[in-house]
Amino acid sequence: MATAGKVIKCKAAVAWEPNKPLVIEEVEVAPPQANEIRIKIVASGVCHTDLYHLFEGMHKDGFPAVLGHEGAGIVESVGPGVTEFKPGDKVIPLFISQCGECRFCKSPKTNQCLKGWAADRYDVMSAAESRITCKGKKVLQFMGTSTFSQYTVMNQIAVAKIDPAAPLDKVCLLGCGICTGYGAAVNTAKVEPGSTCAVFGMGAVGLAAVMGCKAAGAKKIIAVDTNPDKFEKAKVFGATDFVNPKDYNKPISQVLVEMTNGGVDYSLECVGNVGVMRSALESCVKGWGVSVIVGWTDMNDFAARPIQLIAGRTWKGSLFGGFKSKDGVPQMVKAYMDRKVKLDEFITHNMTVDRVNDAIELMKHGKCIRTVLSVSPQ
Amino acid sequence: MATAGKVIKCKAAVAWEPNKPLVIEEVEVAPPQANEIRIKIVASGVCHTDLYHLFEGMHKDGFPAVLGHEGAGIVESVGPGVTEFKPGDKVIPLFISQCGECRFCKSPKTNQCLKGWAADRYDVMSAAESRITCKGKKVLQFMGTSTFSQYTVMNQIAVAKIDPAAPLDKVCLLGCGICTGYGAAVNTAKVEPGSTCAVFGMGAVGLAAVMGCKAAGAKKIIAVDTNPDKFEKAKVFGATDFVNPKDYNKPISQVLVEMTNGGVDYSLECVGNVGVMRSALESCVKGWGVSVIVGWTDMNDFAARPIQLIAGRTWKGSLFGGFKSKDGVPQMVKAYMDRKVKLDEFITHNMTVDRVNDAIELMKHGKCIRTVLSVSPQ
Repeated sequence: MATAGKVIKCKAAVAWEPNKPLVIEEVEVAPPQANEIRIKIVASGVCHTDLYHLFEGMHKDGFPAVLGHEGAGIVESVGPGVTEFKPGDKVIPLFISQCGECRFCKSPKTNQCLKGWAADRYDVMSAAESRITCKGKKVLQFMGTSTFSQYTVMNQIAVAKIDPAAPLDKVCLLGCGICTGYGAAVNTAKVEPGSTCAVFGMGAVGLAAVMGCKAAGAKKIIAVDTNPDKFEKAKVFGATDFVNPKDYNKPISQVLVEMTNGGVDYSLECVGNVGVMRSALESCVKGWGVSVIVGWTDMNDFAARPIQLIAGRTWKGSLFGGFKSKDGVPQMVKAYMDRKVKLDEFITHNMTVDRVNDAIELMKHGKCIRTVLSVSPQ
Repeated sequence: MATAGKVIKCKAAVAWEPNKPLVIEEVEVAPPQANEIRIKIVASGVCHTDLYHLFEGMHKDGFPAVLGHEGAGIVESVGPGVTEFKPGDKVIPLFISQCGECRFCKSPKTNQCLKGWAADRYDVMSAAESRITCKGKKVLQFMGTSTFSQYTVMNQIAVAKIDPAAPLDKVCLLGCGICTGYGAAVNTAKVEPGSTCAVFGMGAVGLAAVMGCKAAGAKKIIAVDTNPDKFEKAKVFGATDFVNPKDYNKPISQVLVEMTNGGVDYSLECVGNVGVMRSALESCVKGWGVSVIVGWTDMNDFAARPIQLIAGRTWKGSLFGGFKSKDGVPQMVKAYMDRKVKLDEFITHNMTVDRVNDAIELMKHGKCIRTVLSVSPQ
């Protein structure tokens, strides 16, 4: 391509500081270095983790940054040493790498990878690794990806090549939320056929968890949310029962335990609230109940009484649904193309990246499931 | 026997109230009712859970009680409907029942049982179920067993028949501590060959956990205790490394993470302290580390940062080492008789039940591993 080897000037939504709207700026994206790939981002979902960084989990040293980590695009050019990708390939940037060589990648037990940028820090890639600058200043790549930029650069260990027929404005959602929720049920909780599940929080991640529970053969899937507007959508993905904690004047865990003759077999916390994490654990049946923390927060401790675990419950957590990223994402794209996994039903809004602040407002107020931003013209 | 069908007057150590020495009293033990067995207790270990009830976890409604729950004895008589046991059988009373019929007993995933006295409360059997009285007052059976009494009565679903050749003054320890620690490693953590383990707390439970890790094929077993006097014993059971948190001015989890190139594969908390529970979790490697809460406390919450689980660690708990009680205890007795499991090495003191308060003092001050009380003459 004509741009290969050159700095690309393009549009990106820059978060200059916490608690402020993003600003659409012209940024400069450097050419890919060894083992790196420059990607034209075509579409990007807006995920709650973007908001988290901006409004709650803000560390002063995490700005300025380009947010966005749920994108899909097309390879523009590749750096030295890249053989697996070529310009024109459709790809999904991955916030967890899969080098294939470290002891984590070699273990079937985990999707952690030692070689990625995220081995030390989960929010932003270091300035040295970022290839984006704005007004002469390095801009950090949020979650290593920065999909609210028309172009981004990533190491090949953190990019998945996908089916050339895949619609990027749909499969972008597999870059985070849908894999996260679906995989938490299927890979982390390992939901069994005939079981009873409760999913807390009916955002995109929670809905995807419901879809995962259903795919795994759960018999009863209880959707829990304080916003009953979400229940209609939950039904679409397979929820069988609907509980609004505000309808009860007793703890929600007690409600669920009573509904299920002792508690659910699996619970999934898809909110990112330590109180909900506790409720999710306490909703599980003793003996074998498994509760999975899927929602993200690092502001507070989660806690419970030791007897909750001693009585036989298991508390786990899930990052990116336990999927090994480079292996898992193309498989999920295939599952979507084969109509085994739904994506279209998550998308409630479409807009261009210029309106990213509107998308953020929608999400902040629970008015959307997923907004997909058109970032570059395809 | 001449006593069958009659009330037996015998000796028992009664805890009249919290924080007071036990009192050796004459108690009356009623004949067994339907499905019950009256057992002459020959020997009993003194376990930290007895102290916990007396000094820390005391609920006013848990007294008066006969403590002791780690005993072995001989069937004196059986009530109507008991066919599995006959007078003269050697048995171990079980603080967790195994009815064999409830949905928990039928699941391979758990050793919980719905039919036992402990389904509602973990400390004492209800007054209605207790067959022991003293001075005209019902005395509660601690953990359903009351092995500091020369006779006790238990439902047949909570009694294990064992090898007639088994020495009761040794195998009594399989009634609690040794199965608890050993099983936590083998059944709950499911320690894998070649793995690295850390065991926190080198009391009998912790030492048994070390033995379990070794039996499961762990390569490196790190014994952690603030009392370095315990390390010599830990070596006997298979510990390969020894860490005293007092020797470091950084968190013990950091010490262990540094010693093990990222953290241990399995950690077992055998103290019953919520701070140690957190340290044990944080000592685990991300990706697949499993931490098991074995020590008992119900006074405080345990807690950690969500990222600890999201990064791939699992937090579990273990009660009685995950052994289905009636099945597991005879197997462990056999393993001892076959010299596959050590018991003698745990016993540092032997005395008669009259000196139970001396045994409690020894334990309180960490001066013993296990004291075995001779309760009835055999």
